Amino acid sequence: VPALDRGLALGDGVFRTLRVRSGRALNWSWHWARLTADCEKLRLPAPDEATLRSEVARVAPGDAVVKATITRGEAGRGYAAPTAVRTTRIVSAHPPPEHPAEWAEAGVRVRRCHLVLAQQPRLAGAKTLNRLENVLARSEWDDPAIAEGLLADAEGRVIEGTMSNLFIAAGGRVFTPDLGRCGVIGAQRERVRELLRHEKVHCEERNLRWTDVLAAGEIFLTNSLIGVWAVRQVDERAYAPGPIAARVRELIERDDAAA
Amino acid sequence: VPALDRGLALGDGVFRTLRVRSGRALNWSWHWARLTADCEKLRLPAPDEATLRSEVARVAPGDAVVKATITRGEAGRGYAAPTAVRTTRIVSAHPPPEHPAEWAEAGVRVRRCHLVLAQQPRLAGAKTLNRLENVLARSEWDDPAIAEGLLADAEGRVIEGTMSNLFIAAGGRVFTPDLGRCGVIGAQRERVRELLRHEKVHCEERNLRWTDVLAAGEIFLTNSLIGVWAVRQVDERAYAPGPIAARVRELIERDDAAA
Repeated sequence: VPALDRGLALGDGVFRTLRVRSGRALNWSWHWARLTADCEKLRLPAPDEATLRSEVARVAPGDAVVKATITRGEAGRGYAAPTAVRTTRIVSAHPPPEHPAEWAEAGVRVRRCHLVLAQQPRLAGAKTLNRLENVLARSEWDDPAIAEGLLADAEGRVIEGTMSNLFIAAGGRVFTPDLGRCGVIGAQRERVRELLRHEKVHCEERNLRWTDVLAAGEIFLTNSLIGVWAVRQVDERAYAPGPIAARVRELIERDDAAA
Repeated sequence: VPALDRGLALGDGVFRTLRVRSGRALNWSWHWARLTADCEKLRLPAPDEATLRSEVARVAPGDAVVKATITRGEAGRGYAAPTAVRTTRIVSAHPPPEHPAEWAEAGVRVRRCHLVLAQQPRLAGAKTLNRLENVLARSEWDDPAIAEGLLADAEGRVIEGTMSNLFIAAGGRVFTPDLGRCGVIGAQRERVRELLRHEKVHCEERNLRWTDVLAAGEIFLTNSLIGVWAVRQVDERAYAPGPIAARVRELIERDDAAA
């Protein structure tokens, strides 16, 4: 990548991380939907879908994690975007993450992060290359037994994990934080909401507080690589394994198999 | 730059932009002070000063703008930083910006931007590679007669320009916004504060509102490339050329010549 690429100079770009199994990009439709939504948020020309799919297929013929990055391309110094943008597209394959097998089975331990997310509605939801808050939050712990950290904003609204989206189940209903002010809308989050809708399980975006998280019967995390992780502990609060996370895992697996 | 550099993947790095004249890096001491402060904010190992100076001298033997970028280097996917960091350092020379000569002489027209800066005290002040807010703000206008846009936070505190720091003069005193919640602390801003202090001109960091800006007798902008620009208009409000910006320009020029 050229040193003058705006992706490097300014973080002026977006990316997605997706799972490829036996050469099939899982949950492609939501990845594509989110990528184009994020490009639109930055007024960045989206790539051609067929081209991008073929690039993903080329770098990952078997099992892999694929990262696709789109930047506003090479340009001179300064914030003003060039009138004729030639985006840079980077598609790379990586080994799948190696998380302990019991995390998927028995649930994970997570912590509350100290870092407070800034509120920027103009960028909220988008998976941009400006990820320093996640870097700072992830640097708060190095205990390998802790799988994830949860983040809130300055008003005490719980938003997400450093690399995952959050769902809580309470009173037979499922809630996930509203991401209109900060946070990243994951492709897996969107699919899980859709799958729950099809199952007639009420799943609502709303503002959630730490008290809501601690009072919930069940909480779980999603992203495109982990699928779903039930949470068995947030700091000192323990949760029993719950049926909703298990059901969501089944739904994801069925959807992956059917695609 | 490798595609897996954390500077590109996450904006995990910092940069400075400085002016070199006849092979001399102007205001070096403040650039160096700010660079090391910003590295510390990200817990990024700072480069060796003598090495960096010699790299600047090598790329810019005459007149140039030099950009120095330090990233957390190449790494695998994910937010967790590698335990053994090998930073990437990019030092590049660029032509000096070509602004109309009358901007320095007669002052500039600026506008109020719609974009509202997010508040992130953990990153405030640092010139990181996460610059999407500046990109969005700069994209709000393309009228070449408008030199700069001013930005405020959600509480209505005026913070900075998209590429410059703001000073206002009122009642014989000078004020510049407090940058503890958002904004970038420019090396020129710090030098101007120091030069004013030596002149026994009271210059105070404080929270400033639009009403303060509109009520000020004089306002001016600083950065390392423009030096100082008096502002002659903010949207519909016009300002007469004032003595403080002129004095600051003299002080900067004298300091540059003496270094």
